Amino acid sequence: MKSIYLDYAAATPLDPQVLKAMQPYLGRQFYNPSATYLAGRAVRKDLEQARSSIAQNLGAKPVEIIFTAGATEANNLAIAGIMRQFPDGEVLVSAVEHESVLAPAKEFRHRLIPVDKQGIVNLPKLENMIGKQTVLVSVMLVNNELGSIQPIREISQILNKLSILRKSRGNKLPLYLHTDAAQAANYLDLHASRLGVDLLSINGGKIYGPKQTGVLFVRAGVRLLPLVLGGGQERNLRSGTENVAGFVGLAKALDKAQSRRKQESKRLAGLRELFLLDLKERTPLVIVNGSDRHQSPHILHLSFPGQDNERLMMQLDELGVQAAVGSACSASKDEPSHVLKAIGLSDALARSSLRFSFGHGTTKSDLKKVAELTGQLVTGNR
Amino acid sequence: MKSIYLDYAAATPLDPQVLKAMQPYLGRQFYNPSATYLAGRAVRKDLEQARSSIAQNLGAKPVEIIFTAGATEANNLAIAGIMRQFPDGEVLVSAVEHESVLAPAKEFRHRLIPVDKQGIVNLPKLENMIGKQTVLVSVMLVNNELGSIQPIREISQILNKLSILRKSRGNKLPLYLHTDAAQAANYLDLHASRLGVDLLSINGGKIYGPKQTGVLFVRAGVRLLPLVLGGGQERNLRSGTENVAGFVGLAKALDKAQSRRKQESKRLAGLRELFLLDLKERTPLVIVNGSDRHQSPHILHLSFPGQDNERLMMQLDELGVQAAVGSACSASKDEPSHVLKAIGLSDALARSSLRFSFGHGTTKSDLKKVAELTGQLVTGNR
Repeated sequence: MKSIYLDYAAATPLDPQVLKAMQPYLGRQFYNPSATYLAGRAVRKDLEQARSSIAQNLGAKPVEIIFTAGATEANNLAIAGIMRQFPDGEVLVSAVEHESVLAPAKEFRHRLIPVDKQGIVNLPKLENMIGKQTVLVSVMLVNNELGSIQPIREISQILNKLSILRKSRGNKLPLYLHTDAAQAANYLDLHASRLGVDLLSINGGKIYGPKQTGVLFVRAGVRLLPLVLGGGQERNLRSGTENVAGFVGLAKALDKAQSRRKQESKRLAGLRELFLLDLKERTPLVIVNGSDRHQSPHILHLSFPGQDNERLMMQLDELGVQAAVGSACSASKDEPSHVLKAIGLSDALARSSLRFSFGHGTTKSDLKKVAELTGQLVTGNR
Repeated sequence: MKSIYLDYAAATPLDPQVLKAMQPYLGRQFYNPSATYLAGRAVRKDLEQARSSIAQNLGAKPVEIIFTAGATEANNLAIAGIMRQFPDGEVLVSAVEHESVLAPAKEFRHRLIPVDKQGIVNLPKLENMIGKQTVLVSVMLVNNELGSIQPIREISQILNKLSILRKSRGNKLPLYLHTDAAQAANYLDLHASRLGVDLLSINGGKIYGPKQTGVLFVRAGVRLLPLVLGGGQERNLRSGTENVAGFVGLAKALDKAQSRRKQESKRLAGLRELFLLDLKERTPLVIVNGSDRHQSPHILHLSFPGQDNERLMMQLDELGVQAAVGSACSASKDEPSHVLKAIGLSDALARSSLRFSFGHGTTKSDLKKVAELTGQLVTGNR
């Protein structure tokens, strides 16, 4: 039985072209990029070429790109790297952030920005929450459970307005905006200036690149304290011998993701709509979570009232369909996700919810099959 | 011209067998190990198998093995993870530690343990330095510039004795021993109980495994605070989707390194001795740095009085020989290394020093050629 993978939000397969780009550094080009002989400097050059390529995709300068071991580390570096400089400062994070933003934020003075039923940050409330001590706001670009797209540009405009006001009042604290773009990089524009962000995180493992590779964009002029100290790599912000294979792969993956994002968004939006129509016909009670108008095409989060999502997931798994109960990180924990609580979903509905997420390998016929199987399971006809 | 690589202490090529072990996870087994469907759990099982294999090589339990993105992160996690719990505590680190131990230690109350001219920690001085507030001692197993082997077992015995004394006096502070074993794993026994350590760091990139993979062994019962927060992977000590390919590769690399360490140590010790005899004949003024009796066979650190090491390194490079001026991490900085200062080497001698480091690919005929070329360069006959 061929399996149908619908958990692209949890992990993406490595693109064979990305692996091919990595191969030299898994082979003969194994040199330490800090070595000063010619072979070492050649590897350094390739690493810097990867950094430039990423910078270009973000509309950034190479010096603004910090390589990390994934988005979790990038998010931690962003939050702790700013907040440790301001003992009295406050960080505001949306209530639906990934744990890798929430957990470091909780180490500092923090408040959660509420979201509406579609998982979107409430802009007037956010504006009201920003106080004299707020130095950082962190809102993800695309939510990893629901797929809701946050109004980052609008948030940036609010912060800019308040920054100017703040300066005119003699308050010298900065007011930075960070966005976790881990789920967005395949589908949305990541141009940092257009988004208006000061810090932005990307994850290789979600864009058909290698796992445990990531990037933190840090706008020039934004000072950060490092988490990991040592040899002084990555402008002293992240020490450790560089994973050249991984970072070259990440650059290739991001480049491919960004160049095909419009086409792939359109393709998946179409598939998602068809799949949803099909499912609604078969299971009329199904509830769609996420946003009507601001929705990433790769995630479809559904509640099937009366169903047990764990059982449904396992039944689908036995039939060769891989879908998720919540995010992978929280899947192993036995409690309803904070995201579903934040949008006001009842515990009962949360426990009846599945996340289907789509990607390169997803086809119309696969989704037809999954709709059929899901329909049969939910209506008890299988 | 075939090049002769003599910088194995800076980076080792990936063993093809290790790459082969990684391949499935760079291909079809790309699943997120936190996913709860069968394919995810299968990947989780392989990851845990890798953890068990590493544990076995360290004489440890799987639960004592924390995967990290390299030894730099492991060292940071060890130092900061302990010290952040004890605001009044002190950490003692040897004066010849790698920057990834020194730099995090400097964030806390710390003192440097002096070493003798051979780079070996002075045990009576160490014993005297341990005070009521000392909670952590960190001494590397093998020094990365000189190759000197530290008396970790003896240090452990001193700490055990003082721990008992301390308890009898009602002092409840712990007294932990950490060792950075990044340079040791190819040549020395890493059995944690035999070494008597509480924490131990390993680096994949130095043992023919993948770069940016590492392990921190944390003895059961030793409490640690995490550096990177989020999804709660690695027993909440190190969040982020696991690099299954990397960790499976690391396990394979460590297993191979430990199973052939005796044979390879003997082989390289023989080659090192021959190379040194050859060089001494050709350049009688050469000075050997490191230890007579406690020396890792893979490093030979030499001073060539009157020579400029940068020039010598570049001349050798042009002739196809890759050797190092100090460690790779410090090579790009323009100051004599702290290690050479700590053993009392003059700045002039430090600036005339080269590190040759050996590995699997090193042969007798290669070293004969390198001795010849070095001799010619140093005596001005080339």
